[in-house]
Amino acid sequence: MEGISRKIYLELSGPSEEDSRSSQQRILDGLEGMGIEGRMTLRVMGKLYPLCEEAQWKLTVSLAWDGIQWILTDIEPGDTRTAHYGYAVDIGSTTVVARLWNCETGECLWEAGNYSRQIPYGTDILTRIFYCKDDPQKRKELKDAVIDTILDDLKEIEEKTGIGPEQCIQMVTAGNTAMIHFLLDMDAFCVFSTPYAVRADRPGFLPGRELGIPISGFVYCYPGKSNYLGGDILSGLVAVEIHKREEIQVFFDIGTNGELVIGNRDFLICGAGAAGPALEGGSVRTGMRACEGAVDRVKIREGKILCHVIGEKEAKGICGSGIIELIAELFLNGWINILGKFQPEQSDLITEQEGSFRVEYAHGLYFWQEDLDEFIKTKAAASTMVEYMFRESGISLKEVSGFYVAGAFGKHVDKEAAVTIGMYPDMERERLISAGNASLDGAGKLLLDRQVLAEIDEILEKMVYIQFGAVEDFLHMMVAAQAIPHTDLERYPSVKKKLEERKK
Amino acid sequence: MEGISRKIYLELSGPSEEDSRSSQQRILDGLEGMGIEGRMTLRVMGKLYPLCEEAQWKLTVSLAWDGIQWILTDIEPGDTRTAHYGYAVDIGSTTVVARLWNCETGECLWEAGNYSRQIPYGTDILTRIFYCKDDPQKRKELKDAVIDTILDDLKEIEEKTGIGPEQCIQMVTAGNTAMIHFLLDMDAFCVFSTPYAVRADRPGFLPGRELGIPISGFVYCYPGKSNYLGGDILSGLVAVEIHKREEIQVFFDIGTNGELVIGNRDFLICGAGAAGPALEGGSVRTGMRACEGAVDRVKIREGKILCHVIGEKEAKGICGSGIIELIAELFLNGWINILGKFQPEQSDLITEQEGSFRVEYAHGLYFWQEDLDEFIKTKAAASTMVEYMFRESGISLKEVSGFYVAGAFGKHVDKEAAVTIGMYPDMERERLISAGNASLDGAGKLLLDRQVLAEIDEILEKMVYIQFGAVEDFLHMMVAAQAIPHTDLERYPSVKKKLEERKK
Repeated sequence: MEGISRKIYLELSGPSEEDSRSSQQRILDGLEGMGIEGRMTLRVMGKLYPLCEEAQWKLTVSLAWDGIQWILTDIEPGDTRTAHYGYAVDIGSTTVVARLWNCETGECLWEAGNYSRQIPYGTDILTRIFYCKDDPQKRKELKDAVIDTILDDLKEIEEKTGIGPEQCIQMVTAGNTAMIHFLLDMDAFCVFSTPYAVRADRPGFLPGRELGIPISGFVYCYPGKSNYLGGDILSGLVAVEIHKREEIQVFFDIGTNGELVIGNRDFLICGAGAAGPALEGGSVRTGMRACEGAVDRVKIREGKILCHVIGEKEAKGICGSGIIELIAELFLNGWINILGKFQPEQSDLITEQEGSFRVEYAHGLYFWQEDLDEFIKTKAAASTMVEYMFRESGISLKEVSGFYVAGAFGKHVDKEAAVTIGMYPDMERERLISAGNASLDGAGKLLLDRQVLAEIDEILEKMVYIQFGAVEDFLHMMVAAQAIPHTDLERYPSVKKKLEERKK
Repeated sequence: MEGISRKIYLELSGPSEEDSRSSQQRILDGLEGMGIEGRMTLRVMGKLYPLCEEAQWKLTVSLAWDGIQWILTDIEPGDTRTAHYGYAVDIGSTTVVARLWNCETGECLWEAGNYSRQIPYGTDILTRIFYCKDDPQKRKELKDAVIDTILDDLKEIEEKTGIGPEQCIQMVTAGNTAMIHFLLDMDAFCVFSTPYAVRADRPGFLPGRELGIPISGFVYCYPGKSNYLGGDILSGLVAVEIHKREEIQVFFDIGTNGELVIGNRDFLICGAGAAGPALEGGSVRTGMRACEGAVDRVKIREGKILCHVIGEKEAKGICGSGIIELIAELFLNGWINILGKFQPEQSDLITEQEGSFRVEYAHGLYFWQEDLDEFIKTKAAASTMVEYMFRESGISLKEVSGFYVAGAFGKHVDKEAAVTIGMYPDMERERLISAGNASLDGAGKLLLDRQVLAEIDEILEKMVYIQFGAVEDFLHMMVAAQAIPHTDLERYPSVKKKLEERKK
């Protein structure tokens, strides 16, 4: 397996009366002897002397693939093949996570994540886009904010491993279309405005130093399929390898937006749509991100609500996974009905305030009827994407061998609870798989395997995009999904069974 | 004929519900429709918005060839195909001359030359090399000095034409191996020290901005064949097209060093050697460069020396072309003999001072016996190169259809005088051709014709290098050439005839 960078050790003969080839030619000939054609950068030319002589012509060259050819980006004395490093970076709107890879052994050496320095410009992407719209100076601020966050990660990695960007050849990044627009100093308003034609969707390999990232080679940005199906999804698909399997699989990335891909090695149907901020703790009065003080696990036992709080501290609010468990428990215990309405007679914890019902899930913290309504709308949007795609493709749930849920949601949310509230389809639990940070995994995969570039082209070629918003009966389906788990309980046999058991 | 840059005008349809391709894809598809595959730079991605919309998708893209592929380096609104510019630059050790070309019409718009900002570091290259040897900081000073001289030229051109580097795509440079080493921040000591293996001899296409030259595309450096046969010679060969002809031709570039190529489309034999500073006015007591106040033309009429002075001013010294005419006239009038020794009885202008003879060629300015001796050694070195190469290749002068003399020497020196002193071979005068600044011409040729790249490879492939210093009888031949025109006068029938005529 050959990655997008190589380190080649050469033992060359030095110049003599009989052989007065240039240092450059000597090295290129050495590489050619190994079947590698390369092109030397200005930087390497400047390093040839006195390095080659001092190293007695035993040297290691760094090669970076630029999509077409190998570029000699660095030269070091001696055999440094084992010091062969690269980065994979997931550029999220909230956090930017980087991994340092040993490209020789294929081992991940360290991972560091930092909150995006873009957050002060707006927690959501749209605010950031409006901040810098038609103002190149402000656009540059946002670009610098992404770059600086990446550099924060790299610095942290260097502190832990002693390996800094100067020792790395390539970087692979994956991010949604808007984040990549920010990264490359492009206006991102197009991502959210009709006709959704973005500026650039296949940035390819860009010189790292031109971007402000001091690696010796290139920053590769995963390409996007469309405005809402960005490089993070492509990278995620590469990670879970749907496109390589015979069995049909599903890749679902759900957050403020939802992206869904169904397919196998023969076809890939994809769609994307807005879900709403509720899944990430937004739009819920006491909602918060999954950090210290957030309720992330909820059980109702003997009429009491038992919460787990991140950091084992006093609860300050509730995050996405906590909300889902809370709603599932409220429903299974009959404290809310199938339409998600509070049943105050079922518990003293349900109280009325200013004409609204609410439940006190932790000391002094309430989950309101409005929060419930909002959340159910969001989960309806998400589950309808799945339902709609299945119907359109004529594929039944039974045919699906794996339903991958990407991202923080898939990682932290309890599958059982997610099925109970109708967020995930009701299928065997072992087929519901958390894909983790698939976007980051896919970035690392390309770093270590150049063949992935061909896979990416293949995936882009195969992907058929379905615009959800464009379909009228999508809205009808979504209304039907605004119940727990669904107006049609027959679609959720395991939930139906659970309800029956509880009634006993 | 297609150059190494192109400007393509595209009239594209804007994004719509039905066609939401990215701006990038839209442009690349437009190019593909014209059979061009291209890669977009970060800089162009950043310019897409609002440029494309504002131009209503009628735009012109700049394409720069990088040796392998077309790179989209710029984008402009509207049809700007006629504003298609590039530079050719001859990087000499004394002067750096740049030409601005209109790459659409193939017309040279302006030429500007400036004294190299490296001169303060040493008039000769070796002094400069020793100045910065093993000191990267000083090496950078010398690099910056070359770049700044190029920028001086470009600024002058901009002042005259209104066209600056930002409007130019490519730059082709030609210079000797040492100058190219300076330009690319490489140690150049190797050029003059055994075993004469240089750092890099095929720099190729390097991003202009990386070098500090703000064109949108690349700076191409003509490759060198060896330490003494640099890119300036390759470029000169491309200019005079020896490698394309059936007839045998000679390319001779003479200055402090001499480079010589004999060949045709089937073979190219080349050699190089030191000639000495005398030809450029150095090592002569009153010698100076060909600038204001320099004697550049000399005749002896009725016992008087008549001089022409550059700028029609009072004479301050004598330049190379003046020296050659002076010596030729001294010889033809019998004021010096065949060994170049003054014959004081022939003229009152020849006087003795401190045991040395000298001639007063202009008021208060003297040419000494030592000057003569030094100059004759230099011309012997130069003419022996020619003689030696002819002998080695088994080619006779009669077979040569054109003897090109490149550079300032070829341009300013009177052919007749140069034959008389034995500097040029005695052949029909119309076959002795001044090639002018062939290095600069060749640079412009590549700018306008991409096929030249293949020619360069072909020339490098064909060139057979003969090391003069390595040959023992080269020295014997040189001694025989230390006479005017030569110890064997039979080799110079036209000079012999002239002498006989004068005697009558």
